[in-house]
Amino acid sequence: MKDYFKDSLFLHQKMRGKLRIESKIDILDQDDLSLFYTPGVAEPCRAIDKNPAMARELTIKGNTVAVVSDGSAVLGLGNIGPLAAIPVMEGKAQLFKKFGDINAFPLCLDTQNADEIIATVRRIAPVFGGINLEDISAPRCFYIEEQLQDLGIPVFHDDQHGTAIVVLAGLINAARYLKKELTDLRVVINGAGAAGTAIARLLRCYNNNEKICIAVKEVLICDSKGIIHHNRTNLNPQKQELLAYTNHENREGSLQDALRGADVFIGVSKANLLTADDVRLMNPDPVIFALANPSPEIMPDEAYKGGAAIVATGRSDFPNQVNNVLVFPGIFRGALDARATTITPGMKMAAAYSLANAVINVEKNHILPDPLNKRVAYRVAQDVKAQALLEMQKTD
Amino acid sequence: MKDYFKDSLFLHQKMRGKLRIESKIDILDQDDLSLFYTPGVAEPCRAIDKNPAMARELTIKGNTVAVVSDGSAVLGLGNIGPLAAIPVMEGKAQLFKKFGDINAFPLCLDTQNADEIIATVRRIAPVFGGINLEDISAPRCFYIEEQLQDLGIPVFHDDQHGTAIVVLAGLINAARYLKKELTDLRVVINGAGAAGTAIARLLRCYNNNEKICIAVKEVLICDSKGIIHHNRTNLNPQKQELLAYTNHENREGSLQDALRGADVFIGVSKANLLTADDVRLMNPDPVIFALANPSPEIMPDEAYKGGAAIVATGRSDFPNQVNNVLVFPGIFRGALDARATTITPGMKMAAAYSLANAVINVEKNHILPDPLNKRVAYRVAQDVKAQALLEMQKTD
Repeated sequence: MKDYFKDSLFLHQKMRGKLRIESKIDILDQDDLSLFYTPGVAEPCRAIDKNPAMARELTIKGNTVAVVSDGSAVLGLGNIGPLAAIPVMEGKAQLFKKFGDINAFPLCLDTQNADEIIATVRRIAPVFGGINLEDISAPRCFYIEEQLQDLGIPVFHDDQHGTAIVVLAGLINAARYLKKELTDLRVVINGAGAAGTAIARLLRCYNNNEKICIAVKEVLICDSKGIIHHNRTNLNPQKQELLAYTNHENREGSLQDALRGADVFIGVSKANLLTADDVRLMNPDPVIFALANPSPEIMPDEAYKGGAAIVATGRSDFPNQVNNVLVFPGIFRGALDARATTITPGMKMAAAYSLANAVINVEKNHILPDPLNKRVAYRVAQDVKAQALLEMQKTD
Repeated sequence: MKDYFKDSLFLHQKMRGKLRIESKIDILDQDDLSLFYTPGVAEPCRAIDKNPAMARELTIKGNTVAVVSDGSAVLGLGNIGPLAAIPVMEGKAQLFKKFGDINAFPLCLDTQNADEIIATVRRIAPVFGGINLEDISAPRCFYIEEQLQDLGIPVFHDDQHGTAIVVLAGLINAARYLKKELTDLRVVINGAGAAGTAIARLLRCYNNNEKICIAVKEVLICDSKGIIHHNRTNLNPQKQELLAYTNHENREGSLQDALRGADVFIGVSKANLLTADDVRLMNPDPVIFALANPSPEIMPDEAYKGGAAIVATGRSDFPNQVNNVLVFPGIFRGALDARATTITPGMKMAAAYSLANAVINVEKNHILPDPLNKRVAYRVAQDVKAQALLEMQKTD
């Protein structure tokens, strides 16, 4: 893989920040000043004071998202804190603009206390139409996202759901290509953090009483100590909760034990922990999502050696790249356009199917669209908006 | 005065927000994605992790300011809350860009508790190089600004100091025009809120032990109950503090009593509370700053009828407009360029003299520069930066 580090540092030094905030229209004379600012601006203020919903129509709120991080789980770098996380959040904001035509502002918070993060997000919410939580470590990220669902604007932890939605989309197309039924699949997830948990939830339609999706047959989820099962005594509350929708047969053992009889491996964990021999333990034509970055759990050639039918990674230099940018711009675009107050399981499912259906000719090396394809986000946005409006009609 | 209200509402409806956030460089291909975002972005992150000061060089922090309000004292509208305040804060951000080439983002906070505002500003600080507090009601605004002076980036309440600096600049030129000494002037301020207090402090060089400025001879400050003096029993702690640097002769009485023997009236209060007869109580050639907006304390023609030598207002349709835009873009530009951690009394004084000196030919109707003159902010920025660097050398 090409080494981008040196060039990236040079570029960041030259640019001194990757974003700029501009007036939509330049202020040229005293009349402009009086219209954009005092005294004229008093009138839109009064209109919002009378009807708060007008804030979405008269201000940037309708099309602005905060990218909120505490810098506790940044890329593969770990807990580098809020200052050092800024370059990532700026990059995320660039992607929001490029693919979703959304104004996104990076807010890196100088606290890693979950309740303080929640309180801060509540207080900064007025100017935003949505909150994208980013690079916040598990299990705090679950609690923070959950507590903020009543905020009145969508709060979405992309490391969880963005990844889960792209994985489900890839899995839908992998199943189509291999002529397997999604409902027949046995899936092993390695990694019980933010992404692993969200993938397990989405694949099992957990949290979705309406059962609008078709769950896979079984999910086993492994952490560093092996399969998560009922007899483990070292599970935190969030891992215990996983047992509600994984491992119905209460299987015990190692990752290798889990792989026996599995159709799909999804790694959101560490480099180089899977071998060709491990892949041979799986059912015929296994599907491998090796998403550890930059070094995957198993290199594609090694996985194919073990009999893999389809391999996806997080890397752009291999086919089938699982990249969140396929989802978050479209899902926020759709939510903002629908004036949705949350991102529901139904909207996530709509995004996954939209993404899967964006691939016209599904091939072994083409189960997902190209992350740079701008049409994808518009497609996802349309389908997410439609689903949101449908659900809002029902609750009206 | 032209009615801008209807046109402004229409404009805000069409624009749906007056700001946009853009990438400085468009992301065109996979290489761009790898340089701006993963994997390349890890390198600037690591550089900041090693040396936090690099955040100013590698991210938007070096040139980004938060415009923070709780919506408690917006224009003449009062406490309309954070949502309804957004249009004003967006307008402010436009002015930061136009005149200071600074990225400014409006943060309207869903709390009016002073300690919560302080805690929130501390937590959102990492991505910002400065904080402009805006439209926060007195006396909370004093406490909030004071508590945040140790934040490591400048925190500046523009309604206080921006106004005070422009008033001092105008007064410097008024004195020059009238061939009076600043140190001889007796000043009456009507209004003991944010602006009135800050004007009194600046004119009396309060908080500035180095005495780099030359204070006016005396300041009397009036609230709705008349002159603030030692025998008043209805003073809150902030008004009591005013007695440290105003009213040394402990004069009592009404605004009219205060005006007897005064050289300057500065109104930051309510419309139409001064008459030509009141102006006649003052010393010869009195200077009138009637800054209530949109209707001044006294209309210019009425003030001239009473013998005023020079009249300034807050309005753009009269000469000598006192407009904060003359100061805040330049003062923040200078502070950011100097990497200053606070905005000191010396920097405020430098801004006032810079602004006064920006008027080449001082005339009765030209004691202040035109608010749309972009050269003013650059001039103020240079002088403020020079002062900041001087002070930082001294403390090194």
